[in-house]
Amino acid sequence: MTHPADLSATEALRRIAAGQLTADALWEACQERIAEREPVVRAFTARTAAVPAAIAGPLGGLPVGVKDVLDTGDLPTEYGSPIWTGHQPKADAFAVSRARSAGGRVIGKTVTTEFATRRAGPTTNPHGATRTPGGSSSGSAAGVAAGFFPLAFGTQTAGSILRPAAYCGVAGFKPSHGLIHRAGMKVMAESLDTIGVFGKRAADCALFAGVLTNQDLSGVAETAPRIALCSGPAEGRLTPETRTLLDDTAHRLSAAGAKVTTLVLPEAVLAVDQAHPTVMHGETLQALAWERAHHRGQMSEVLNERLDWAEKMTAATLAQGRATFAAGRAAFADLMADHDILLTASAPGEAPEGLDWTGEPVCNALWTALHGPCITLDAARGPAGMPLGIQLVAPFGWDAALLGWAQWVETVIGK
Amino acid sequence: MTHPADLSATEALRRIAAGQLTADALWEACQERIAEREPVVRAFTARTAAVPAAIAGPLGGLPVGVKDVLDTGDLPTEYGSPIWTGHQPKADAFAVSRARSAGGRVIGKTVTTEFATRRAGPTTNPHGATRTPGGSSSGSAAGVAAGFFPLAFGTQTAGSILRPAAYCGVAGFKPSHGLIHRAGMKVMAESLDTIGVFGKRAADCALFAGVLTNQDLSGVAETAPRIALCSGPAEGRLTPETRTLLDDTAHRLSAAGAKVTTLVLPEAVLAVDQAHPTVMHGETLQALAWERAHHRGQMSEVLNERLDWAEKMTAATLAQGRATFAAGRAAFADLMADHDILLTASAPGEAPEGLDWTGEPVCNALWTALHGPCITLDAARGPAGMPLGIQLVAPFGWDAALLGWAQWVETVIGK
Repeated sequence: MTHPADLSATEALRRIAAGQLTADALWEACQERIAEREPVVRAFTARTAAVPAAIAGPLGGLPVGVKDVLDTGDLPTEYGSPIWTGHQPKADAFAVSRARSAGGRVIGKTVTTEFATRRAGPTTNPHGATRTPGGSSSGSAAGVAAGFFPLAFGTQTAGSILRPAAYCGVAGFKPSHGLIHRAGMKVMAESLDTIGVFGKRAADCALFAGVLTNQDLSGVAETAPRIALCSGPAEGRLTPETRTLLDDTAHRLSAAGAKVTTLVLPEAVLAVDQAHPTVMHGETLQALAWERAHHRGQMSEVLNERLDWAEKMTAATLAQGRATFAAGRAAFADLMADHDILLTASAPGEAPEGLDWTGEPVCNALWTALHGPCITLDAARGPAGMPLGIQLVAPFGWDAALLGWAQWVETVIGK
Repeated sequence: MTHPADLSATEALRRIAAGQLTADALWEACQERIAEREPVVRAFTARTAAVPAAIAGPLGGLPVGVKDVLDTGDLPTEYGSPIWTGHQPKADAFAVSRARSAGGRVIGKTVTTEFATRRAGPTTNPHGATRTPGGSSSGSAAGVAAGFFPLAFGTQTAGSILRPAAYCGVAGFKPSHGLIHRAGMKVMAESLDTIGVFGKRAADCALFAGVLTNQDLSGVAETAPRIALCSGPAEGRLTPETRTLLDDTAHRLSAAGAKVTTLVLPEAVLAVDQAHPTVMHGETLQALAWERAHHRGQMSEVLNERLDWAEKMTAATLAQGRATFAAGRAAFADLMADHDILLTASAPGEAPEGLDWTGEPVCNALWTALHGPCITLDAARGPAGMPLGIQLVAPFGWDAALLGWAQWVETVIGK
């Protein structure tokens, strides 16, 4: 029988409802797993001392990990930066408050890269401790994979949910931009930053995101989708195993009834990928104005270099980047009129060796900037035995549909 | 000679550059004015004790008032709510940090209504202490009018900059949505909230907004604009003096060379006005999740009632509201292809009697939701001797153009 800490959120809730498990026993099982593996995985920045009181609700007492860019009124929130060491917010972020009200129990804060940008934290990949878990939501992805909590929060500006989900072999869902309020989040790029969730499977993401957005997102699609197979702007960067995985997946989905068409992106959409760094760094420069003015020496060299670059940018360049985004979103909506979901890679390949660098968001930044929902599903293992994910993308606002098709896809690929 | 506290920001900087005034003397003049009038005006929630060190920059040491929904690392930030009494943020908001880096000197925090929503603060109108200064940026608008500071920050979700500017007889500018990063702002409605500025004239707003957005917005238009005269969705609410002011202004601008056309708004644009409360309250409910969960009794009855209403809203209704916004923005951009700016009322009439209510944003909410820049210019006096403003609106992204035409309009109407 599966150890309780390895259960998916939805399966744990089913067992709790059936009287086969209690929320407190699950909490205890997660604590035991943490005691066992946290010294190597290093997913947490802070942990809840006592078992939180049970609040009735759809999250049924499940332990939740909270990426440390979201404020918590009872745990320090440090944004992955020594500038904020020991910082204790007064209030919970909206997302945290909503999760608690729905019966989620925060088990700890999870490692983020520096301000959810490039400099890595200490977290290791639970599937191989010499490899990165991906980032910036490093601790949340690794913690779900390790069985520290069945649900966790992430945030994404480029690929900070989708990529670590793939590297750690879990599901990661970034909703449509703006669907989850960012009150109490340390926002970097206002045009891009989106709060999302991790679980073991698509159904877990649907459960959690549904609670956060006050709607039922749990429905499984009953018909096969029309799928646009698209290697995306990162085509030249994909490893052979990732190319094979995409083709094999397309064949299996096609055999199961999906209509699969290869999609080549038009220039207006590809231009969004090119404009992504402009908007991301231009807006991050504003977000970190106070830190730059007062604590520049405590910011990493790589971050300061990026912001130095952004500082040379004119307001017109930033405006042009945002205009490119708007044009690309319109073009993508038109393009997807004949498709339900887009199938692409979540990452170039397996999680790279080393902990100094969380890998590149080349498979994710475009879709983030297009503002639609994206999900990573755990799909296979690579030549080194590390997880490989696939990414499904839908147009803006199609969150429920994407999650429904994601569950259909999981069934077909045998997950 | 004008008292230094009554100088516009641009005129004060001119005199400082000419050696006729010093920044410290201006600071002192503002302090004297505050000592004289603050007991009645009540614009401040907190004041800077010592003169801040001078930092060279385009704001040249000018005193700046900061609406108390923007974090300041050296002054309490209470968001107009007893829940946050004494709250001391660690860092400055982006906008505040940028203003300081550019040589602005924060002279104090200014009164906001409760969380920038409906419940009024104690501020009175400097033109008549029995009347409201408007809100939610009450202290910022009143403080500029009273000579407490030549520049101030406001924020707007519906009409929180444009209306108080009109009631207090100053200029108030709301830039395009997203132009000024909201890091360190207590955001209510993510789809709507925009940081903006107050000054005595359009040139002051252009100076300040240019510093905040890293561009030169100070250019005066050299040609007369094509003006769409539009009474807007609040047509039936305008007082006779406001109707007369709009018509007179249109005639004067036409006589000065502007091409004035009366514009009737199509249904797709008017629907945005109808959807505004849905999105505003739906998103505010998320923004205040922590406050509602833990401190509901310290929230005003009117706010709790609004949020109770929002709580009954489905996710589909909120999504529909945002979709209505998107469709209306596209329709408005098309509509404005043959016009440069739109001329409408800033408020139904003079500032109402009484301090319990800051007046209705019926002349402003639509334009806020359309995401383009808007400015109030002080235009006339009403039957009670109180200020009347006019509002100019432009399509998204036309901030520099709008400010340039606003200066042209001011010249024509003799301001």
